[in-house]
Amino acid sequence: MGTPPGYRPSAWVHLLHQLPRADFQLRPVPSGFAPQEQEYQQALLLVVALAGLGLGLSLIFIAVYLIRFCCCRPPEPPGAKSPPPGGGCVTWSCIAALLVGCTGIGIGFYGNSETSDGVSQLSSALLHANHTLTAIDHLVLEMVERLDEAVRTELTTLEEVLTQRTELVAATRGARRQAEAVAQQLQGLAFWQEVPLSPVQVAEDVSFVEEYRWLAYVLLLLLELLVCLFTLLGLAKQSKWLVIVMTVMSLLVLVLSWGSMGLEAATAVGLSDFCSSPDTYILNLTREETGLGSDILNYYFLCNQAVSNPFQQRLTLSQRALANIHSQLQGLEREAVPQFPSAQEPLLSLEETLNVTEGNFHQLVALLHCRGLHKDYGAALRGLCEDALEGLLYLLLFSLLSAGALATALCSLPRAWALFPPRNPSASCSGSHLSEPFLHARLEPVPHLRSFPSCRRRPH
Amino acid sequence: MGTPPGYRPSAWVHLLHQLPRADFQLRPVPSGFAPQEQEYQQALLLVVALAGLGLGLSLIFIAVYLIRFCCCRPPEPPGAKSPPPGGGCVTWSCIAALLVGCTGIGIGFYGNSETSDGVSQLSSALLHANHTLTAIDHLVLEMVERLDEAVRTELTTLEEVLTQRTELVAATRGARRQAEAVAQQLQGLAFWQEVPLSPVQVAEDVSFVEEYRWLAYVLLLLLELLVCLFTLLGLAKQSKWLVIVMTVMSLLVLVLSWGSMGLEAATAVGLSDFCSSPDTYILNLTREETGLGSDILNYYFLCNQAVSNPFQQRLTLSQRALANIHSQLQGLEREAVPQFPSAQEPLLSLEETLNVTEGNFHQLVALLHCRGLHKDYGAALRGLCEDALEGLLYLLLFSLLSAGALATALCSLPRAWALFPPRNPSASCSGSHLSEPFLHARLEPVPHLRSFPSCRRRPH
Repeated sequence: MGTPPGYRPSAWVHLLHQLPRADFQLRPVPSGFAPQEQEYQQALLLVVALAGLGLGLSLIFIAVYLIRFCCCRPPEPPGAKSPPPGGGCVTWSCIAALLVGCTGIGIGFYGNSETSDGVSQLSSALLHANHTLTAIDHLVLEMVERLDEAVRTELTTLEEVLTQRTELVAATRGARRQAEAVAQQLQGLAFWQEVPLSPVQVAEDVSFVEEYRWLAYVLLLLLELLVCLFTLLGLAKQSKWLVIVMTVMSLLVLVLSWGSMGLEAATAVGLSDFCSSPDTYILNLTREETGLGSDILNYYFLCNQAVSNPFQQRLTLSQRALANIHSQLQGLEREAVPQFPSAQEPLLSLEETLNVTEGNFHQLVALLHCRGLHKDYGAALRGLCEDALEGLLYLLLFSLLSAGALATALCSLPRAWALFPPRNPSASCSGSHLSEPFLHARLEPVPHLRSFPSCRRRPH
Repeated sequence: MGTPPGYRPSAWVHLLHQLPRADFQLRPVPSGFAPQEQEYQQALLLVVALAGLGLGLSLIFIAVYLIRFCCCRPPEPPGAKSPPPGGGCVTWSCIAALLVGCTGIGIGFYGNSETSDGVSQLSSALLHANHTLTAIDHLVLEMVERLDEAVRTELTTLEEVLTQRTELVAATRGARRQAEAVAQQLQGLAFWQEVPLSPVQVAEDVSFVEEYRWLAYVLLLLLELLVCLFTLLGLAKQSKWLVIVMTVMSLLVLVLSWGSMGLEAATAVGLSDFCSSPDTYILNLTREETGLGSDILNYYFLCNQAVSNPFQQRLTLSQRALANIHSQLQGLEREAVPQFPSAQEPLLSLEETLNVTEGNFHQLVALLHCRGLHKDYGAALRGLCEDALEGLLYLLLFSLLSAGALATALCSLPRAWALFPPRNPSASCSGSHLSEPFLHARLEPVPHLRSFPSCRRRPH
């Protein structure tokens, strides 16, 4: 009832988790997340290798296509200056491929920002959890110090004042024992004090890696965008050297796209395995890293009715001891103050301390309850397994689209620039010519009519 | 210390909040969020009106430009079939405008999804808060019922068993009084029981509106995308009727873009005023809607060291009473069980009830603490004031880009289709012709050489 609705694996997680995995000998590998096992690592590397295979195949295809185009052209009749047929089709398929590539870039930007959002949600959940954990430690420290101070000063003064009546001294000693017991019980609640793991450090490491991943993708996306735009410009201006440079750049970006696709696919597969049942893995990892007991970790990571609060007993004992101190102080106030007026001051001060401690105790109960930390855990999982995974799938789509688009462009570009007319430097494009490409064109036969916009004058 | 880092207004909020506002008489209006005040409503409507002014100005500009183009053309020499100069420039500027429009569409999709994310974060925070509030009510109800049951059954049995010893009966009655006092104190903690406001209802209303807003934007974006693509297609195929239809559609989308820009700008300005200091407005609104006291609302909405827990006293009293019941039960067990063995069973059952109640009490303390609800409040504010506002600004950028692009396209399109050659139905584009547009072209002078790719045969 007190547990907020937690994380549930999405359909994508189930889908990816159900894909078959195999090691290098192609033996099936169970799809449980086990990054330390060699078999599982091999399964992920095989996913990367599949992308490498895809790259190899597409390079072979492009090479075969271009060799066939270069060597198997039907011989032109010697006098005909006509470009080979299919020029319009080639240019158009090139443009279409580049537009598909641009769409992919848009999707890539979206996916990159979505992944970044997911990871920053993970970091902020870790920072939040760290805030809660340090707040528990500080609060316990503060309460213990306050109680120790009360025992050292007010209770000692009170004993000295009431020294004549032994039963009152006994009551004061009883209060002192209870206060010491509370302080001792409380000290056991600062469970994160000795833990060597710092969520802040983890959050910083994650953010650091994510920052570079984000930057690398932005650079890749911008590079591909520039390649697309400059290729279009090269086609528009029929600039052979620009198109050649962009063909080489396209080849580079094709390799990068397949590389990123392999990494994304492997990460997505690994992430889906992790996300399909994260509790067990995280529990084991946290137990190893922190050395905390299973009861505490189960309480925070599961936080349901079946797991009881491991601090329940300490809290109840502290609470009862605080109530006992309160009734003892009230008894002392009734009995001692009429006879020893100087006892009133330390008694009032003690009650004040007790009230503050009880207020802090309620805050401590709230901080120790699993709701807060479990909510952070849920937020971290949602960030990683929903937003980041979704972003990763978008990035995968971007890589697929861009690999397809660039392969098509690489097939078309050399054919397109083979169709360009020989360059005439004196008539190259300039601002004033841009707006009047027709004036000369309409006067004479056009030896090389392009099917793509050109701002160059046709040779006279 | 126990308060998690909350919401802080972003730079965009500050920037938008500092813009001057004015009513219809152009008198300055303070920029505090006051949607019920007429002056403030006028200031927002004036922002919408500015977009209307922009639409009017751009329509006038387009009309003047086109009229000038139609009426003030230099008279063509009668024999010359040349298209007017500037055709290439016109087509290229049209394509550039449409590409800018497509970029805007990409930004619009991103902004729409970002806004949707922000609003769904708001809804989920509301649902979460509702979960906490109903959990408090349920828990209080459960604890009170359990205590009532214990008073009715076990304590009554105990009194009957111990009826021979009056001091034990007195102790049992003391425990009964304490249990009744705890039940009464607890009932005061279910503060949301009588409140007529349901966060679920608010979340559903918000989601309902957001769903339609999201859908409307997706339709607008798709419409603009289709207009851009079909206009490009029309230019490529030199299809006059398609370009004419798309010109009309562009005009429609231009009006829609300016309209959405007005709504976005007004919403962004209003949202920035709300987000610059949301606490006061939300506090007043919630006070009116729920009728809850300021102490409770301040505690949950501010949740800092300065605001004390309004349930502190009730919690402390309940806690002390529970501890007293425990010590009384222990006394009874010590005194009564040796003499009355039949008292053991109700006593054990009572202690079991007390343990469960103390466990539930700790859960109640955790639920009542401001941390959880204040975190939901912070998440709701971040969703609305960071993600949703950011998305809104992206949508504003989309509207600006698309208004500019469409205005440029509207200026260029009529000029572009005026340049199209007269249609020759028998030679219109078909698949088989696409790849051989040059074979015929190179044989004779070309009367209408397009600066845009065309797959139609030139007229012979």
